[in-house]
Amino acid sequence: MKQPDNPLHDAHASLAAFDGEQLMADLDALGAIGREAGRGLQRMAYSDADLAARQWVQAQMQALGMGATLDAAGNVVGYLPGSEALPALALGSHTDSVPGGGAFDGALGVLAALACVRTLRSQGVKLRHPLLLLNFAAEEATTAASPLGSLSFTGRLTAEALDGPAWHGGSTRALLTERGFDSDALVANHPPLPLAAFLELHIEQGDQLLSPRTPIGVVEGIVGIRRYYVTFEGQANHAGTTRMERRRDALVAAAPFITTVRDVAVAHGIVGTIGRIDVQPGAPNVIPGHVTLDVEIRDMANTTLDRAEQALHDAAAASGAQMVHGHCKEPTPADPRLMAAIERACVRLDLPHRALPSGAGHDAMNMAALCPYAMIFVPSEGGISHAPDEFTLAAECIAGGRVLLATLLDLDEGV
Amino acid sequence: MKQPDNPLHDAHASLAAFDGEQLMADLDALGAIGREAGRGLQRMAYSDADLAARQWVQAQMQALGMGATLDAAGNVVGYLPGSEALPALALGSHTDSVPGGGAFDGALGVLAALACVRTLRSQGVKLRHPLLLLNFAAEEATTAASPLGSLSFTGRLTAEALDGPAWHGGSTRALLTERGFDSDALVANHPPLPLAAFLELHIEQGDQLLSPRTPIGVVEGIVGIRRYYVTFEGQANHAGTTRMERRRDALVAAAPFITTVRDVAVAHGIVGTIGRIDVQPGAPNVIPGHVTLDVEIRDMANTTLDRAEQALHDAAAASGAQMVHGHCKEPTPADPRLMAAIERACVRLDLPHRALPSGAGHDAMNMAALCPYAMIFVPSEGGISHAPDEFTLAAECIAGGRVLLATLLDLDEGV
Repeated sequence: MKQPDNPLHDAHASLAAFDGEQLMADLDALGAIGREAGRGLQRMAYSDADLAARQWVQAQMQALGMGATLDAAGNVVGYLPGSEALPALALGSHTDSVPGGGAFDGALGVLAALACVRTLRSQGVKLRHPLLLLNFAAEEATTAASPLGSLSFTGRLTAEALDGPAWHGGSTRALLTERGFDSDALVANHPPLPLAAFLELHIEQGDQLLSPRTPIGVVEGIVGIRRYYVTFEGQANHAGTTRMERRRDALVAAAPFITTVRDVAVAHGIVGTIGRIDVQPGAPNVIPGHVTLDVEIRDMANTTLDRAEQALHDAAAASGAQMVHGHCKEPTPADPRLMAAIERACVRLDLPHRALPSGAGHDAMNMAALCPYAMIFVPSEGGISHAPDEFTLAAECIAGGRVLLATLLDLDEGV
Repeated sequence: MKQPDNPLHDAHASLAAFDGEQLMADLDALGAIGREAGRGLQRMAYSDADLAARQWVQAQMQALGMGATLDAAGNVVGYLPGSEALPALALGSHTDSVPGGGAFDGALGVLAALACVRTLRSQGVKLRHPLLLLNFAAEEATTAASPLGSLSFTGRLTAEALDGPAWHGGSTRALLTERGFDSDALVANHPPLPLAAFLELHIEQGDQLLSPRTPIGVVEGIVGIRRYYVTFEGQANHAGTTRMERRRDALVAAAPFITTVRDVAVAHGIVGTIGRIDVQPGAPNVIPGHVTLDVEIRDMANTTLDRAEQALHDAAAASGAQMVHGHCKEPTPADPRLMAAIERACVRLDLPHRALPSGAGHDAMNMAALCPYAMIFVPSEGGISHAPDEFTLAAECIAGGRVLLATLLDLDEGV
């Protein structure tokens, strides 16, 4: 891995010094916080386990000589001064989990960022840019306002968003108040200093890096999401006394549309899902009078989403259904200069890599409002995430951490 | 309507004296108990309104000189002695309602029975048989143990059945205890005397008597009901990161089966319904991993149900689904001698009539365990029931009442 032409002499040494063993030990230690036997991680946003995990991260930062504070949202903000008066480089991810989550989602990005600082410290490297290390709160959709921590950090959280429900059964605002957080302060939050770039290492949560096996994914962007409510109206009636030829069964009317969503997604090369269906009145002896399908489609390209949306509209109209637009999230492309830096890092480290979109949302999506961003993906075994058996090979976790460090050093020279 | 060959001289006079105006006034009076503006009848089992309605019926019985008591289940049991030592003839139905029910379902059968007694009294007619007038409690499926009152009256209620939920949110047992009923006494209940026959007048709740319009239906029996849980297993996964070709979406797998149930029902000339569907995990951004369809089929003929069931089994197996048998209720044929008596009554009253099955369950279904039974149907406008706009023409309510009386007089001679 000799790089004689590389002007960054210390970068070469730093990459060699990256302590992969410590990174894996940290993943084990953090993964024990909130893990319940047979039920995976239970580190839901602002739960005791979640708060304990972020305190643990804060202590690690402090042990590495960083300034480390909790902001208004409970995001852990680690700070390392730079040698020049430049905007900051930022690394990070989250440590909360879904109910029954795994030990890699979010945690890897936070702990790899810690490992980068550990390497800088052990090698006596001082960056030109100030460095922010961000451990965001409430990234997972266990609150209606998630990713809540990065929304608050970037000054984009609205008070209304806190009215929605959280995993504990009450409103998100009630959850925050109960845990001692001030909702007004979350809404008034803002980044502590100007930012030059944000990098996030994360597990892929999909299977694109599995065939062919590729240790590093360079994220092209985070897909746009469009949600629709497609409603079929029929006539609720007695399931015993209403002859078949007199029925207007809303579920029978809706059934072909379930297949249509799959077919439209396949035809347009995107993903399309019906994850929820509401059947009213919902009794075994009553003909359904009202059915609503929750449809979503995702892709990086708005033009493709437009075409798929039109196909769904046409199919809904043809079957007499109402299609209402719900939540819509624009695609968030990654910054090409940062992607190029990640690719250079992979070349330097001799790691196969490929570009791919992120089908899931991430904190980086919110950070994109502040500064250029890019993301590094490592493979998820079996494409599994948000589950106790979520797993990434140690070699690939460590490779991801090294790419993060190499990209950071590259950006520190060039940005 | 002269019947010179009729040996029942007083029957002719009695039928002429049947007070239809009073029957309609009674329907109005009873229909006001528990009616809420814009929300129909709210006389759910053992609610205040339901108990008030049954007390009102009890007072009417007493005013007609009947013995009238509440049994262990709160069934109102009216009694008129006969002139001979014979088993009793019984008439009746129920006065509880579904939430948002109408004024005719159940009530017509109880009030028409009262009208029969009123006629006997006004004409000074004494029956040979003792007469029971039964106003059953909790017929509607607002408790898991319904038809609860007639189950208890016929000595067939099990203690376990009371564990299931009731409309108020708690168990059926808790509802009974709260209203001062003793669950053990309900289970130990039994009919007060031997019975020769049970007759129930009821609205059709379907549309078979509407085309061609036929004022009287002679019920051939109450259909059998078979319920199934058909489960499709897939793989829950992230709706953004899982490509279409890697998915095992349980809802996409289940969709064609929804159409299959409709097709199988039509092909076999029966009714088939999916009234409820459970999609797990049921989040808009998660591919369904587990879908269960609640299927039911109904018909009078077990052989037809057998064939339809086999077709459903084959379709489930072909799509890799598990089909589990749930609740099963055997068809309950009406007694041919009693049906013939109803037909004779229609001929005597010059009322068009036709035989038809009952697609819905009724208290008569439980009474069939004690004695021969038959039912008289009158048309439901629009086939609508269990709704505030449930309606039957006064002329048809009164015609049904006269047929009930004529059948009673016929049976009193002949049984």
